[in-house]
Amino acid sequence: MWAFINNQFVTADQAVLPVSDLSIQRGYGIFDFFRTVEHVPLFIDHHLVRLQHSASVLRLQLPFSNDELKNIVRELINKNNLPTSGIRITVTGGNAADTYTPTTPNIVITQSPLTMDAAFDASKGLHLITEEYVRELPTVKSINYLMGIYLQQKVKDAGADDVLYVKNGHISELVRSNVFAVTHQNELITSDANVLYGITRKHILQVAAQTMGEKEQAVSLHDVLHAKEVFVSSTTKRLLPVFSINGNKIGNGIAGTVTTDLYQRFLELEHQVIGKGW
Amino acid sequence: MWAFINNQFVTADQAVLPVSDLSIQRGYGIFDFFRTVEHVPLFIDHHLVRLQHSASVLRLQLPFSNDELKNIVRELINKNNLPTSGIRITVTGGNAADTYTPTTPNIVITQSPLTMDAAFDASKGLHLITEEYVRELPTVKSINYLMGIYLQQKVKDAGADDVLYVKNGHISELVRSNVFAVTHQNELITSDANVLYGITRKHILQVAAQTMGEKEQAVSLHDVLHAKEVFVSSTTKRLLPVFSINGNKIGNGIAGTVTTDLYQRFLELEHQVIGKGW
Repeated sequence: MWAFINNQFVTADQAVLPVSDLSIQRGYGIFDFFRTVEHVPLFIDHHLVRLQHSASVLRLQLPFSNDELKNIVRELINKNNLPTSGIRITVTGGNAADTYTPTTPNIVITQSPLTMDAAFDASKGLHLITEEYVRELPTVKSINYLMGIYLQQKVKDAGADDVLYVKNGHISELVRSNVFAVTHQNELITSDANVLYGITRKHILQVAAQTMGEKEQAVSLHDVLHAKEVFVSSTTKRLLPVFSINGNKIGNGIAGTVTTDLYQRFLELEHQVIGKGW
Repeated sequence: MWAFINNQFVTADQAVLPVSDLSIQRGYGIFDFFRTVEHVPLFIDHHLVRLQHSASVLRLQLPFSNDELKNIVRELINKNNLPTSGIRITVTGGNAADTYTPTTPNIVITQSPLTMDAAFDASKGLHLITEEYVRELPTVKSINYLMGIYLQQKVKDAGADDVLYVKNGHISELVRSNVFAVTHQNELITSDANVLYGITRKHILQVAAQTMGEKEQAVSLHDVLHAKEVFVSSTTKRLLPVFSINGNKIGNGIAGTVTTDLYQRFLELEHQVIGKGW
């Protein structure tokens, strides 16, 4: 497998960074991640806009324009010839002699196999626990997953699948997913603050708007516990129902009709985008 | 310069980690840092105890016992022949194929030049700003400095030197230092919660106990703003007076007599430890 580092394509075993890099020294870096389907990177423009936002907030000077990044991604896709995959662009604080001050960023682009079921399995869903926490600089897709990974033992001990962050009674997101609730008035709601603005999230809001009310707003834990349906979204999950939170069954405890419908319509959007190529 | 990675000594240019390492992927790792003076690593046993604590909380299996680590440090010191230096031991979540789950840690030990003035300059001190924040898993010396580095622009814009974290009116620490206040009753107080338990901090409390009251307790921002003297402590600073916080002059705005005295006595302790060798 080929990867790209700074200004060259290298083989996987050469994909290394010096230990002076600020990601290793201080966990300082950003990334973005998107899928390819039939060699087409899905929603790449949206991901690159978010990458630029993350870089801007952390004051990392991206060494390439979005067009240049797309050309590098195109070449990587051609070299690896892996039609269905995940592509990750990581941008770090660079090699810091003082182990602290950001310098010229290192940029790493990797591609790895990633297949996704196109069929929706209504029997598959998540059991969540909650944790009082809000991610640091939540609109930034930083590499800081200290709490998320730390909490995995607690998730495991609870026999759950993942953790939902709650702060002062308001929910934000999961470690690597956004979360939606379908109210009993058939409105789709999702947190408008303290979240990563997910690309799948954005497109779900878009397809939902065709048939139902949808709103980004403050969402309380009470709202999701008493919702008709709850689901999460992410690049690697599309939509996935939530069956329980802290042991409380959500809705009927299976995938609801709204979730199933939105999944199908998101999948159609995905097919349309892939069909257009790039 | 030599470094040590996993099971071998390498030269500086070979000190690299694969981009699959969990520090680069998810900012997941710990470290500790100590000085050498005349080839003797200062308070190394205390630093290794803290490293073990950090590893334990983040569930990283340290590949070496403290005795083995000391032998590696000894060999590194011998090979580099750099009497006055900083040594950093970094332990990461390891190479994670799934970019998320901790695996066998990578361990990296580096040595770099670091000289410290032995003379105390009473005219040198810090101007701080405050930020509403508490570090994630504060007793762990994790590599997560996302907020600390992010805030440096705010520090710079304010013409300040560093940032003091405050949460709900209580102070905890600076980005890379502990903080102490000397009350008008000549008691030395420092936060007992939400702080990294600094090795310099511990020894300052120890030397202070010989001549004055000293207490680890909840410390409010009001306490430090109205203190007689305020100073910070760290491995690379020993003690350094704080001259102002958010533009408010602390005490006389110069190094106070208690700070100066504690600095001298900490320096004496340092000399004693070095004198004993290891």
